[in-house]
Amino acid sequence: MHQPTFERIRVRYGETDQMGHAYYANYLFWFEQARAAWCRDRGFTYKGLEERGLFLPVVEVHVRYKGMVHYDDWITVKVWMGEVRRAAMRFDYEIVNETSRQIVTQGYTWHIMMGSEQRAVTIPEDVRGLLERNPADYETLP
Amino acid sequence: MHQPTFERIRVRYGETDQMGHAYYANYLFWFEQARAAWCRDRGFTYKGLEERGLFLPVVEVHVRYKGMVHYDDWITVKVWMGEVRRAAMRFDYEIVNETSRQIVTQGYTWHIMMGSEQRAVTIPEDVRGLLERNPADYETLP
Amino acid sequence: MHQPTFERIRVRYGETDQMGHAYYANYLFWFEQARAAWCRDRGFTYKGLEERGLFLPVVEVHVRYKGMVHYDDWITVKVWMGEVRRAAMRFDYEIVNETSRQIVTQGYTWHIMMGSEQRAVTIPEDVRGLLERNPADYETLP
Amino acid sequence: MHQPTFERIRVRYGETDQMGHAYYANYLFWFEQARAAWCRDRGFTYKGLEERGLFLPVVEVHVRYKGMVHYDDWITVKVWMGEVRRAAMRFDYEIVNETSRQIVTQGYTWHIMMGSEQRAVTIPEDVRGLLERNPADYETLP
Repeated sequence: MHQPTFERIRVRYGETDQMGHAYYANYLFWFEQARAAWCRDRGFTYKGLEERGLFLPVVEVHVRYKGMVHYDDWITVKVWMGEVRRAAMRFDYEIVNETSRQIVTQGYTWHIMMGSEQRAVTIPEDVRGLLERNPADYETLP
Repeated sequence: MHQPTFERIRVRYGETDQMGHAYYANYLFWFEQARAAWCRDRGFTYKGLEERGLFLPVVEVHVRYKGMVHYDDWITVKVWMGEVRRAAMRFDYEIVNETSRQIVTQGYTWHIMMGSEQRAVTIPEDVRGLLERNPADYETLP
Repeated sequence: MHQPTFERIRVRYGETDQMGHAYYANYLFWFEQARAAWCRDRGFTYKGLEERGLFLPVVEVHVRYKGMVHYDDWITVKVWMGEVRRAAMRFDYEIVNETSRQIVTQGYTWHIMMGSEQRAVTIPEDVRGLLERNPADYETLP
Repeated sequence: MHQPTFERIRVRYGETDQMGHAYYANYLFWFEQARAAWCRDRGFTYKGLEERGLFLPVVEVHVRYKGMVHYDDWITVKVWMGEVRRAAMRFDYEIVNETSRQIVTQGYTWHIMMGSEQRAVTIPEDVRGLLERNPADYETLP
């Protein structure tokens, strides 16, 4: 039902630190890139939501770093919708390091749906429809 | 007993995003800067630990974003040692936006003590002593 | 005549890369932080300019990296106004690594004055006055 | 003779700033990603060079920002070898914003070839051979 989207990312040199691994903050950039891919997979863009005056600021983050990510590694971020509430939603993530073939990260991000007055708003019906869409559904639309 | 350290940081333009707030990954840089200050407050540096072959990679992060942080705001990161285990430790954080006078963030980071062979090691006794030091103790050392 | 402003910055762990030095892009964040300090030294803020609808996007950057900057080093960014034209200005920079006592970086950034319609505009007279101010002048204002 | 490599990158949300464009430092990350692609196009990796004890730190950067880059834009970084000296080389860059169909950036980076003792070294003959390779040559190697 809640199909994931997979986003492949190659680790940049500037994303490492002197310990020789990816610095821990950079995973949040990768989560964000994966969320954008998740939207596109369902036929809309986060950019388009913002153009409508709808924003999804992050209100909570949790990440477990279980393995190593090095420069030039290919990683795949698996992202899926964990939960949708009236005005909030949670994305879940798992990162596989394809180079080492390990699950290296698990995490989630909670977002609220915010209107242009910077207040939480009920997720509009049509947006809720997009969030509950599966890529397969989308591909079979007329 | 577990005295906090306070680190003041002014938000950089490059730390904002097009929503007009600080991007969510940047808080992890601020946590790190506060941890470094916490060490110095106790008479040692994280840099010095690494020179001894001891590393503190982050294995878990949790952040709640409760308020807004804008460009040029002064924030104060309060950081304290939440828990010390045999080979791991947790730092706790609270960020106050001094400009808006709000608590804007709460979070923690778990770290393991890693030796130069990239394996977890028991925290050496003398390092444990440093971690349990209070700034006040340190200032009254002979 | 063109007095510099000096901004001290301590290098963050996340600003290093696996070569063990500060990653080359991070110097541009430090330049930006120094420009903000330069403005404050003259009694105004870049934030305030933006609130008036005036923006200073960067249109050109040049940096020479002449020495090394490591984690936890203190650096001092010296910044001064190199040139002011009708709708543009150049800031010049020199970074001294206080830890190694070397000049490690020289550079400049060109900016255009942009109005809220995203077009270049002549620098308003009062802003020009601020740009040509010296900190000393400012301190002796009534 | 000096064939370029083209690297497509989609702009991340975290790469924007509150002006609504990509922050000026992020272009240097994109240049770096394009250099890595340039190497791979010629049958080697920068990571592999480092494993041999050869490093290419940046000693000079020049960037002209001529147009705008927004969140979610596709950009293409064109990168080619501008010049090779005894122990140094220059990469040249041009970024096209595919979304706006404009040339938005031009720049270069100078690098020195550094050995593991952190001193400049003459580029080894076999590495010089790789640098002077064209992707086409490489593809027709036996």
